[in-house]
Amino acid sequence: MSINLDTIKFNQDGLVPAIVVDVATKDVLMMAWMSSESLALTLQNRETYFYSRSRSELWHKGATSGSTQEVEEVYYDCDGDTLLVKVRQNGSGACHTGSYSCFTNRLDAK
Amino acid sequence: MSINLDTIKFNQDGLVPAIVVDVATKDVLMMAWMSSESLALTLQNRETYFYSRSRSELWHKGATSGSTQEVEEVYYDCDGDTLLVKVRQNGSGACHTGSYSCFTNRLDAK
Repeated sequence: MSINLDTIKFNQDGLVPAIVVDVATKDVLMMAWMSSESLALTLQNRETYFYSRSRSELWHKGATSGSTQEVEEVYYDCDGDTLLVKVRQNGSGACHTGSYSCFTNRLDAK
Repeated sequence: MSINLDTIKFNQDGLVPAIVVDVATKDVLMMAWMSSESLALTLQNRETYFYSRSRSELWHKGATSGSTQEVEEVYYDCDGDTLLVKVRQNGSGACHTGSYSCFTNRLDAK
């Protein structure tokens, strides 16, 4: 499989935001950043890899926790500067807090 | 309604990424950036406002095209640095190309 990453616009730090969605429920699980290296690994190994801006390192999601994400489909947007990754979520969930999704906090009035 | 935006971490440019989802279909429509001003207007007026990085200006989504987005719920993630906005999409869709969603291009092999 040969994939041309020239369509993807990485920012000045060499990163692109990746929205991760559960392909089974369509829930948004998380958003994290990918470098060209982590994107290539994601496409090649069919599990998600990100780039941690706080730790400045490549990060294989779920490598220690078991909450890996099996990649079903990867899309990019009309500007080529955002990715949408549809996954099957393993383990307890996507969030480092143990939650299924990172988006559990409501900002506006209930 | 009083909303405390102190929980939201804006980046060095004063912006936060906002993922927009169709509350009816759960499809991811687009990702764009919000300033504190555009977020406050979004919460107050219950339609989406963003900050255009290319035009360096506040942007009321659909103001000219009619493709406004009525805000149902706004969430923030575990790190407080990404927003998830659930909307009812008006008009033809969310994308400036005329598409319903900005994520129509598949990156990986079909």
